[in-house]
Amino acid sequence: MVLIILGTFLFMIPAATKDRHHLSLIDALFEATSAVCVTGLAVVDTGTTFTLFGQIVLLLLIQVGGWGFMTSGILMFIILGKKIGIRQRLLLQESLNTFTLQGVIKLVQRVIIITLIIEAIGAVALSIRWSYEMSISKAIYYGIFHSVSAFNNAGFGLEKDSLSIWVGDPTVNIVITSLFILGGIGFFVVADVFEKKNWRKISLHTKITLSFTLLINVVSTLVIFGLEYNNPATLGNLETADKWWAAYFQGVVPRTAGFNSIDISQMNLSSLVYMMGIMFIGASSGSTGGGIKVTTFALLIFALWSVLANKEDINIFKRRIPKPLVYRALSIAVSGVLFNFFIFFLLTITEKGTDMSLIAFETVSAFATVGMSAGLTMDLSTYGKILITIMMFIGRVGPLTMAFALAVHSQNKANIRYPEEKILIG
Amino acid sequence: MVLIILGTFLFMIPAATKDRHHLSLIDALFEATSAVCVTGLAVVDTGTTFTLFGQIVLLLLIQVGGWGFMTSGILMFIILGKKIGIRQRLLLQESLNTFTLQGVIKLVQRVIIITLIIEAIGAVALSIRWSYEMSISKAIYYGIFHSVSAFNNAGFGLEKDSLSIWVGDPTVNIVITSLFILGGIGFFVVADVFEKKNWRKISLHTKITLSFTLLINVVSTLVIFGLEYNNPATLGNLETADKWWAAYFQGVVPRTAGFNSIDISQMNLSSLVYMMGIMFIGASSGSTGGGIKVTTFALLIFALWSVLANKEDINIFKRRIPKPLVYRALSIAVSGVLFNFFIFFLLTITEKGTDMSLIAFETVSAFATVGMSAGLTMDLSTYGKILITIMMFIGRVGPLTMAFALAVHSQNKANIRYPEEKILIG
Ligand SMILES: [K+]
Ligand SMILES: [K+]
Repeated sequence: MVLIILGTFLFMIPAATKDRHHLSLIDALFEATSAVCVTGLAVVDTGTTFTLFGQIVLLLLIQVGGWGFMTSGILMFIILGKKIGIRQRLLLQESLNTFTLQGVIKLVQRVIIITLIIEAIGAVALSIRWSYEMSISKAIYYGIFHSVSAFNNAGFGLEKDSLSIWVGDPTVNIVITSLFILGGIGFFVVADVFEKKNWRKISLHTKITLSFTLLINVVSTLVIFGLEYNNPATLGNLETADKWWAAYFQGVVPRTAGFNSIDISQMNLSSLVYMMGIMFIGASSGSTGGGIKVTTFALLIFALWSVLANKEDINIFKRRIPKPLVYRALSIAVSGVLFNFFIFFLLTITEKGTDMSLIAFETVSAFATVGMSAGLTMDLSTYGKILITIMMFIGRVGPLTMAFALAVHSQNKANIRYPEEKILIG
Repeated sequence: MVLIILGTFLFMIPAATKDRHHLSLIDALFEATSAVCVTGLAVVDTGTTFTLFGQIVLLLLIQVGGWGFMTSGILMFIILGKKIGIRQRLLLQESLNTFTLQGVIKLVQRVIIITLIIEAIGAVALSIRWSYEMSISKAIYYGIFHSVSAFNNAGFGLEKDSLSIWVGDPTVNIVITSLFILGGIGFFVVADVFEKKNWRKISLHTKITLSFTLLINVVSTLVIFGLEYNNPATLGNLETADKWWAAYFQGVVPRTAGFNSIDISQMNLSSLVYMMGIMFIGASSGSTGGGIKVTTFALLIFALWSVLANKEDINIFKRRIPKPLVYRALSIAVSGVLFNFFIFFLLTITEKGTDMSLIAFETVSAFATVGMSAGLTMDLSTYGKILITIMMFIGRVGPLTMAFALAVHSQNKANIRYPEEKILIG
């Protein structure tokens, strides 16, 4: 919150913007929220509007926002760990040392260092690639900016049409996607894999995250390839290899980096709908990505399956999932749908006359902190900008946490338990 | 199922359709499914396509479909009742006599008789009203057809634009809405109220159904009134009294009768989105209406509330709701959203080039067996018709039941309980 206000203030000072492209309060607030929540939706064009100073402020907001995302996730996990089984606690203590204030500080330091190392590697790779087609200093700056933006799943770019120029470029495709997939998979998973190096030893959380991430990414690449194959405005006129690069990039990017290498506004409605689905699912817990999270989605699928198979327990990879967790996953999904529906409904009022698909896409993109747009962002009305700003914030802190914070915490006066009574549903 | 096949066959014989408007297999199947599932979506215009014979077949399918809806709901409740508390069982036994085969037959008879009485009253009222502007025989036929169609929440009409001619007519508005609200509230609730006549004595199910139905209907009337007030193609050019009638009618009709008194295709996107929401919620359990049901929705709201208020129990009207029921309600909602998303996604592929709002509205309308259309039904492709037919069927039997029927019932081989392990979600 403090960070968003600070960012808003910095974006409003004249030095941040070129040629007196002075930002209004709401635009500055929008951009600051978008950066801190690593969403990447932009009401102004980053490259042409902001000065170098403005761009660096943007990048710092992204980085601090991304760190906040990751460390708060880890802290949640540690706190969660206090209440769980011995095996789990040992696992955590192994990878995170002991749970002391010192341990936490050490951990945060470690997150920061690993982040900087990964980003540096990404920046070097990108700078070398780009030095072939631009001046060295510009290539280095581009490399750093895009590397930080990608690893933090922010999705801000410097070119007007994101990464479309490099649609078939293997280096850019591989480096950028590796960065945001790593960032989106979460620190805990990366650390877990790095330390265990063995499928049987890694935690259930890591197993689910890895298998579902892989599954969704493969399916998404195939779906986008199939749906856009004949669309002349997107994949249609590309060569076969470039088609695959573009389908892969656009298939994995909605979770939840938000760059684009083809023109999203020209994609088929079916592709947009598919992307809304995977944007809603999002990345993994304790990462720089948003959405309801892959693990939540995995629990939903397994929970429904166990209801259908008439099984009492919900088992994944030979582990039983605690009932309260399943209950929480269902609540997260339902509250996510409700929040999206409500904000979307309000936007259809404020953005009267706009095509439904644009509004729906924008809503889900903001919720999941994806930041892709089918073209609406810059045309939003003031009320629309406020709604999307609120949505980015809700998406950042999570719908359930948000609703929790808003709710009145009524005390259970005494412990009256009412008699049970069934009702007929469904 | 048998009924749908029989209906398809009857619609295909030449005597059913006028002037050799011979129906194709898929159109006949669509119409029969729409009638038996009391959805009311139509690929052909009922009044001008079907002969009197065809229309009577349609009406019989609606009536038998409606009875199936109601009695299966009651049977479910009785079966449910076997496992529940003494108080509840007494309540049920009181209102439904004893649970014997004889009792069931008696009950079904009672449902049929009450249905016919209510429909007769409705038909007489409508016939008298319409006798002022058409021949007596036509008025009687119109009265019977619309009364049956309304009470069973089918939503088939005989005029090309449903009930738009009578948009401001108090008699038509009151009779039709009373019929479908009664039908949509369910036999159990009607019987419960009729026998107890006292708020404190009626069952929790009845209390929740009545209060939420009233709440949603009042809110919907106000929302439609507000959103469409200035729309010249809908409410804008009507007089104030007619505005209220039309807003009331169009506010309560999406749950889930499916008539219309104003042109739905001309309504604002925000109204369509709002209506999709209340269509999805639908009517009450064991009624002629569809959707996830008001009681399911009520449980969702209270469940989320109890999560937020950090309460262990979910209490409504001083009764505690059993946890498995809440779990089931969340599962119904999630599977409903998944089914809608999946069919909607497939429709965006088969109906390429169609506006998203039309497809989304059509999907939810079929799912909730509402039968309102923003204009797409008659333009559907063959694959689209098949998808909507499937959706009407899913909506009729309920998403969870449907998925249940489709799922492989894997046996729990022995009773291995895996060790519990938490994962991080949301
Ligand atoms: K993003
Ligand atoms: K209907």
